Amino acid sequence: MTNSLFNRHLVSVDSLTLNDLDLIFAKSISMKKLVADKGGDERLKGKILAALFFEPSTRTFSSFITSMQRLGGGIIPLPTMNFTSIAKGETLPDTVRVYSKYADCIVMRHPEPFSVSTAAKSAQVPVINAGDGINEHPTQAIIDYVTIREKFKKIENLHILMIGDLAHYRPTNSLAKLLTLFPEITVSLATPVQTPIPAEIKDYLLKRKANFKEYNGFSKLLPEIDVLYITRVKKEYMTDKLYHSVKGSYIINAKLVNKMKKNSIIMHCLPRIDEIAMEVDADPRSIYLSNQLANSLYVRMGLLDLILRK
Amino acid sequence: MTNSLFNRHLVSVDSLTLNDLDLIFAKSISMKKLVADKGGDERLKGKILAALFFEPSTRTFSSFITSMQRLGGGIIPLPTMNFTSIAKGETLPDTVRVYSKYADCIVMRHPEPFSVSTAAKSAQVPVINAGDGINEHPTQAIIDYVTIREKFKKIENLHILMIGDLAHYRPTNSLAKLLTLFPEITVSLATPVQTPIPAEIKDYLLKRKANFKEYNGFSKLLPEIDVLYITRVKKEYMTDKLYHSVKGSYIINAKLVNKMKKNSIIMHCLPRIDEIAMEVDADPRSIYLSNQLANSLYVRMGLLDLILRK
Amino acid sequence: MTNSLFNRHLVSVDSLTLNDLDLIFAKSISMKKLVADKGGDERLKGKILAALFFEPSTRTFSSFITSMQRLGGGIIPLPTMNFTSIAKGETLPDTVRVYSKYADCIVMRHPEPFSVSTAAKSAQVPVINAGDGINEHPTQAIIDYVTIREKFKKIENLHILMIGDLAHYRPTNSLAKLLTLFPEITVSLATPVQTPIPAEIKDYLLKRKANFKEYNGFSKLLPEIDVLYITRVKKEYMTDKLYHSVKGSYIINAKLVNKMKKNSIIMHCLPRIDEIAMEVDADPRSIYLSNQLANSLYVRMGLLDLILRK
Repeated sequence: MTNSLFNRHLVSVDSLTLNDLDLIFAKSISMKKLVADKGGDERLKGKILAALFFEPSTRTFSSFITSMQRLGGGIIPLPTMNFTSIAKGETLPDTVRVYSKYADCIVMRHPEPFSVSTAAKSAQVPVINAGDGINEHPTQAIIDYVTIREKFKKIENLHILMIGDLAHYRPTNSLAKLLTLFPEITVSLATPVQTPIPAEIKDYLLKRKANFKEYNGFSKLLPEIDVLYITRVKKEYMTDKLYHSVKGSYIINAKLVNKMKKNSIIMHCLPRIDEIAMEVDADPRSIYLSNQLANSLYVRMGLLDLILRK
Repeated sequence: MTNSLFNRHLVSVDSLTLNDLDLIFAKSISMKKLVADKGGDERLKGKILAALFFEPSTRTFSSFITSMQRLGGGIIPLPTMNFTSIAKGETLPDTVRVYSKYADCIVMRHPEPFSVSTAAKSAQVPVINAGDGINEHPTQAIIDYVTIREKFKKIENLHILMIGDLAHYRPTNSLAKLLTLFPEITVSLATPVQTPIPAEIKDYLLKRKANFKEYNGFSKLLPEIDVLYITRVKKEYMTDKLYHSVKGSYIINAKLVNKMKKNSIIMHCLPRIDEIAMEVDADPRSIYLSNQLANSLYVRMGLLDLILRK
Repeated sequence: MTNSLFNRHLVSVDSLTLNDLDLIFAKSISMKKLVADKGGDERLKGKILAALFFEPSTRTFSSFITSMQRLGGGIIPLPTMNFTSIAKGETLPDTVRVYSKYADCIVMRHPEPFSVSTAAKSAQVPVINAGDGINEHPTQAIIDYVTIREKFKKIENLHILMIGDLAHYRPTNSLAKLLTLFPEITVSLATPVQTPIPAEIKDYLLKRKANFKEYNGFSKLLPEIDVLYITRVKKEYMTDKLYHSVKGSYIINAKLVNKMKKNSIIMHCLPRIDEIAMEVDADPRSIYLSNQLANSLYVRMGLLDLILRK
């Protein structure tokens, strides 16, 4: 398989092909083995990753800088860029020009939708989108894809239900878009009426002839789905009034989980607040604290290797 | 000697044995030689340390991430976690579950007493307590133990005087508890009346039959002690009113130091504000800027090696 | 050539000799080749650089920690020291004493003029000034020197024009001082009347018999200069009133650039706000986003190597 990710930006799932996904899947599985065997190796020695985070992050930031180091590379760890460079009023394209001279790859999170893809145009090194406002979070969607495929061995005929505040949730935006590569998949989207999936995403799914449907309740769907994808209410992207109207409306507990198939899985890309009761953690279908979480390291290791090595 | 620290949490000095201390002492001395000889080596290659600090730190944070790198390991350096993940409302157990997937060891500071030991219960990798509110700071106590033992060759019959705001000072809490392993030691605790040693610590010392006494003045004790341990008034843990009532009440200057024995030592784990006059720095008994400070690196290197390698 | 920089502080350009500059120039060119060939090497393995930034920075902070890692060394990356240690009221000399025990070199930025040189007196390892208030920024001046010399092959007979808010701009302070090592150079300083070059710098230039002149306009000078050095209005160091009176008064656009010689160069050490129109970026004379920026990595790699290796 050709490595078409080499030296390329990853700002949207839009750019990914089935070949890319096969490559990433194989690479991620090999990274899992590498970490288990010896923690990492030195294949990215002499390379530097700049992690420029203009919004808070723990998982994404930490897994990227860990991935880089587990492969022998160095890091520019800037978890609170909003407190530093912005103070001086520099434009994002200039910031990206600067890090192009220091680093071999830039991973960036920013509150403005499309800011990362705009900035990437001024970059001389690959730029990875680690979340741009309510728009996309492509690496999370890839992690979710790898996790589902690893669990079910295949992905083609699954029924995937995403629930919660899909209006402001970039990982599900990216995942829904990514899944259009698999036309036999059924996607159900259940949201409170106040926070439906964004119009652009709906348009995207329609154009790609995705097999999807929108709902405002979800419990009836539970017995037939393979994947339950739960999301957090993105308080930071909404008014207080809206937050209080949707908060706590979609909560998964053991009783609901019991309606699900035995070999189905429950996903959440974390952090979670109150949308999953703690009692659900121990259910064997729950993989948000095990496979899905661990894959956030292996997949990002795989992506860095693919993007930085021929 | 068996390495009983391997793969274990270090959340309180309570869990330490005399065998552990012997092991740590020997390891710390060997680390001192390693740093002098070649700066470090690669024994922790492929391992990652997550440093999650929910409270400001310079020494503890910096010495841990330095230690890890001097042994060839990688780091997740998060000195201001309070500005990042907490913003999203994640629980500490969830945070610890996440870092268990990325890192091989977690070192955590947090303002809530016992928060680190509670969090450790959800961890799948060893957790080191880097200070949990006014409760404990076990690695500092170990550093102090190693420093005293290195200086006097033995520790058994010493008289150790701790002075200042012992009500809110976690390093002296941990040190007083640790010293109960040595029943022949004499421990004197001198505090302003407003800030006595915490009741739990007193109970602990009583239960272990420690040879200790409380005082509200300390100058008369100076001629007979071997170790003078000075503490900082922990402004951040008290009301303004209390602060102003104790502030500046325990200040060590050259005149007081002159009452001490020639081969005694003066310790402080820093930062200091005004509790030690600058003139004391040059006194040969002062080791807070030399041995004690340098040991904060060597001992933490030793601990990481013991916890992370069989 | 003897390496007189080994194990030495670099707090002002004042301490540099022509021999030092030759050495740094040669070393920087070799670093450029090293990065192009293999990204870096392991020559500083076992060494640690503490980057203590009490003021926001992107370029200086990031290029230093990148440089250290590209040479195999470790880092203590503290981009927001103002949020951490200062909270406890420690003095800067004590902070520097602490990092002397952990790191092999300290690079420090601080808002107070001369704070870094004062702190260096208490350090037991080399201290590099990464900007001390409105005083100096020696490594930036060295980068600029290397960039000019690389471009023109020599530096002796050039005419260098610096424009803008020179009252608060530490890189031009350092560069003007550094250039006094080359008596044949012509230095022109054009500023708004409100923000002239500081009296101390002027005195320094006079004492060294530098060939310099002050102006309040600059367009007439454009046809005869070799180097145009543009500066940012340092908003953070002035009153709002002063800021609004000088803001936008010195803006370089294509029309002005067209008055310049074909083989002249345009420099700016970034970040820029509005003082260079974007249209100027594509002009072949503009090197602020290419050579000058890239040299901020190569020169700092060279400096670390010279300061840390015999």
